[in-house]
Amino acid sequence: MPAQNKVSLPVIKRLPKYYRYLVNLSAEGREKVSSSELAHMMGTTASQVRQDFNCFGGFGQQGIGYKVNVLLDEIGRLLFGDGELLPTILIGAGRLGNAVSSFISRDTNGYRLIAAFDINPDLVGREMSGVTIRPLEELESFCREHKPVVAVLCVPRQSAVEVSGELVRLGIKGFWNFSHYDLSVEHPEVTVENVHLGDSLMSLGYRLRNG
Amino acid sequence: MPAQNKVSLPVIKRLPKYYRYLVNLSAEGREKVSSSELAHMMGTTASQVRQDFNCFGGFGQQGIGYKVNVLLDEIGRLLFGDGELLPTILIGAGRLGNAVSSFISRDTNGYRLIAAFDINPDLVGREMSGVTIRPLEELESFCREHKPVVAVLCVPRQSAVEVSGELVRLGIKGFWNFSHYDLSVEHPEVTVENVHLGDSLMSLGYRLRNG
Repeated sequence: MPAQNKVSLPVIKRLPKYYRYLVNLSAEGREKVSSSELAHMMGTTASQVRQDFNCFGGFGQQGIGYKVNVLLDEIGRLLFGDGELLPTILIGAGRLGNAVSSFISRDTNGYRLIAAFDINPDLVGREMSGVTIRPLEELESFCREHKPVVAVLCVPRQSAVEVSGELVRLGIKGFWNFSHYDLSVEHPEVTVENVHLGDSLMSLGYRLRNG
Repeated sequence: MPAQNKVSLPVIKRLPKYYRYLVNLSAEGREKVSSSELAHMMGTTASQVRQDFNCFGGFGQQGIGYKVNVLLDEIGRLLFGDGELLPTILIGAGRLGNAVSSFISRDTNGYRLIAAFDINPDLVGREMSGVTIRPLEELESFCREHKPVVAVLCVPRQSAVEVSGELVRLGIKGFWNFSHYDLSVEHPEVTVENVHLGDSLMSLGYRLRNG
């Protein structure tokens, strides 16, 4: 089923959550699930669930409930395509990069880690999640030869400012961005997912101190 | 200024983002900022910014703009309290736990890492972000003696199911939860921030494959 271009970002952001719940339901051996049960798990309404699914053609008859495995297949295909893995490089192989690389190297996520880069000579040459850490000087020649599509930025803000323009020029289309530099302002043509880990930690602190 | 209890979760979740922008403005030497400029940076409206700030007393006169350093101080105090650090333990000292521990051990975030625990004998005894990794068997005696308030869960879903009840019983009030177990269903009395790193990766994949 081809996806419509019109799907809004909030709907897209909910797809992984649906997917996670469906993986759990499937693991429990459940065959059917209703929109109201999905709504309860998602913290939303049954009407919202049906609206979300209608963006993608509806995923089956709502009167008798949805088939768990059909939903899982359809949403999985939307998220991961038809099995083709997106070639991905990682910039910044420190502690955060090391942890994050394990998400990329799990085939089930739809990506394939093909290289990691760092400026630290102590890290260059080491293995990480199945790839060798290369010096940043090799970035351009590597990208010209291997044509990665996605870059994961696990570097500080200033390094991200410096490297992101080059990455866009070298053909990177999507960024999983852990730096605090919002590169989509200067590069609106690429797709960016920003992860601000500290934000949830600060929110937690607020809620604990002011609850 | 005492915070009101009525502040809604979406407003709380925006506070760290305001804080990050203000840190940047302050670093650039800016003294004043308008609600419309803040709105532009936040991707929202000036009216929303003023509404958000009114939840906390307004933060100064809107006609002439906000003073950057006043905003930074006030929002900083909301997020981090008056300098008292929340004693925090980390469960699961693998690659993710190792990366995440560095966020806790930065004093600026308002937390103080006092111990890490793991079941892996290869990790027990090692140093991580200034603390020694302890065997999980020591969890109960450690908590009774040192009274941590926050737990960071960097373990798989099943381990989170097993350990979270014990942590609540031992007095943990807040969880920074990287497992895929939504413990707030069974423990509604505690404050939980869930981080699903894979979700943003899946959303990115959808947008790249279906853009």
